[in-house]
Amino acid sequence: MKLLRIGSFGAEKPAVLVGGDSYVDLSDVVTDFDEGFFGSGGLERIRPVVAERAAAGETRPIGNERIGAPIARPHQILCVGLNFSDHAAETGQAVPSEPILFTKSPNTLVGPFDDVRIPRGATKPDWEVELGIVIGKRTSYLESVDDARDAIAGWVLVNDVSERAFQMERGGQWLKGKSAETFNPAGPWLVTRDEVPDVLALDMWLDVNGTRRQTGSTSTMVFDPYFIVHYISQFLVLEPGDLINTGTPPGVGMGFNPPVWLNAGDVMELGIDGLGVQRQNVIASRTEGEPK
Amino acid sequence: MKLLRIGSFGAEKPAVLVGGDSYVDLSDVVTDFDEGFFGSGGLERIRPVVAERAAAGETRPIGNERIGAPIARPHQILCVGLNFSDHAAETGQAVPSEPILFTKSPNTLVGPFDDVRIPRGATKPDWEVELGIVIGKRTSYLESVDDARDAIAGWVLVNDVSERAFQMERGGQWLKGKSAETFNPAGPWLVTRDEVPDVLALDMWLDVNGTRRQTGSTSTMVFDPYFIVHYISQFLVLEPGDLINTGTPPGVGMGFNPPVWLNAGDVMELGIDGLGVQRQNVIASRTEGEPK
Repeated sequence: MKLLRIGSFGAEKPAVLVGGDSYVDLSDVVTDFDEGFFGSGGLERIRPVVAERAAAGETRPIGNERIGAPIARPHQILCVGLNFSDHAAETGQAVPSEPILFTKSPNTLVGPFDDVRIPRGATKPDWEVELGIVIGKRTSYLESVDDARDAIAGWVLVNDVSERAFQMERGGQWLKGKSAETFNPAGPWLVTRDEVPDVLALDMWLDVNGTRRQTGSTSTMVFDPYFIVHYISQFLVLEPGDLINTGTPPGVGMGFNPPVWLNAGDVMELGIDGLGVQRQNVIASRTEGEPK
Repeated sequence: MKLLRIGSFGAEKPAVLVGGDSYVDLSDVVTDFDEGFFGSGGLERIRPVVAERAAAGETRPIGNERIGAPIARPHQILCVGLNFSDHAAETGQAVPSEPILFTKSPNTLVGPFDDVRIPRGATKPDWEVELGIVIGKRTSYLESVDDARDAIAGWVLVNDVSERAFQMERGGQWLKGKSAETFNPAGPWLVTRDEVPDVLALDMWLDVNGTRRQTGSTSTMVFDPYFIVHYISQFLVLEPGDLINTGTPPGVGMGFNPPVWLNAGDVMELGIDGLGVQRQNVIASRTEGEPK
């Protein structure tokens, strides 16, 4: 299944994609695609409902409706840093011997076509196409990497938007450059695990203003998603619906010489095979005194 | 007011302390002390209810009931690192020129008398008495440090439990050593801002097995709580109910020569003037195959 959430920000309806451009509305069946949903076997509960409604033609075209992030605001967003060897090289950093973890504020999550707002005082805003893991159940101390499969609900395309000056030049820990509002577009869909035959063979790309900037494949990850989930589970407890961004391939703005940063008016387009495409307009910082 | 939550983990009732060892139950008035409560003027809503019930003698003794964390699991837990100059010195690190921020997983939050569990594979578990800030409203781009006052609901005692090997020796970012289950005891109360005349003049202490290990005062913070909230609001959006741990005074285990680490069977007791005291038993790691 491809899960999506349709409607205005904060009032999205849970739905499942059918036939490429239509959906089955599930808002009478489940509250949201949130911790309670994933943690209570929600995916298996909706599967027969979707099949029945699709067969009965109870679908609607997406048309011009807004597509939100395909999951509700999660308990936590974790990210893996420098997880592609050629990306580590372009940033001048060594490939880590074990996963580097950092976090983003959960309220950075927005839809795949929402605006990305440059934070006030930013000088080095940057892009990062990434494969996101959505956790399917409460997960702690997995005994093996193989056990991580059952802990994963599915996969989602994310843009791990970053402000490099805040990230690298303001005190050591990275979250300062990762947590501004709108900095985590996700979607359009959460693709369940059964629909992705090989998650380690997906092409990834990102364009800025029509120029291809990132080209990569999940096949060149240093640590694969199963390793990552097993690894994280040794340090903390993952909750259902948690999001893990697994790192970006080469071609981020800081990797160019001279570097290339985002500006208001720019357009980012990105995609991963089978996980859909995103498009965001980059907009200016909030001005002083503007209502928030 | 002193807010507290009483009952078993995950089923705590919101309440307010009266007379030192009794409480007014508010579970028929508010769902929980959570984002919705703080974000909708909940503090002002319950104030007359508490006064009326206390006057009418509608109170109950706490007795042997469990006291939980005084706030529901927050949207995020942020922490300030090395925020006391003498603590920075004992860890061999420089006083930062601006606040160092890191995060803990929100599900680390437990009650003030709950067990603290050593994570599997830990070699350097440590303690940290801290002043916690609870955010009272959605907060972004504060115009001045003074504006931070209105963004704060109140203060809470926390133990920012840490695993130093995971924090410092496993890949650069600190959250790995901060996010194990049970690693953020908070409470017993959230003390509202009006009840703390000077938050920058509070003594802080922590004992392990009856030996005084930490002695300090909020007066020696490098960055005060108002500065911290103003500062953070320039990087990300704080949500009502968010928790910010503001850093620890000298006397953590890693500061001794040789270092002193926590072991199963140890007892931590800690307090801050006016914010109450905590007591935690340290218990052994989960064994393999144990149900979680």
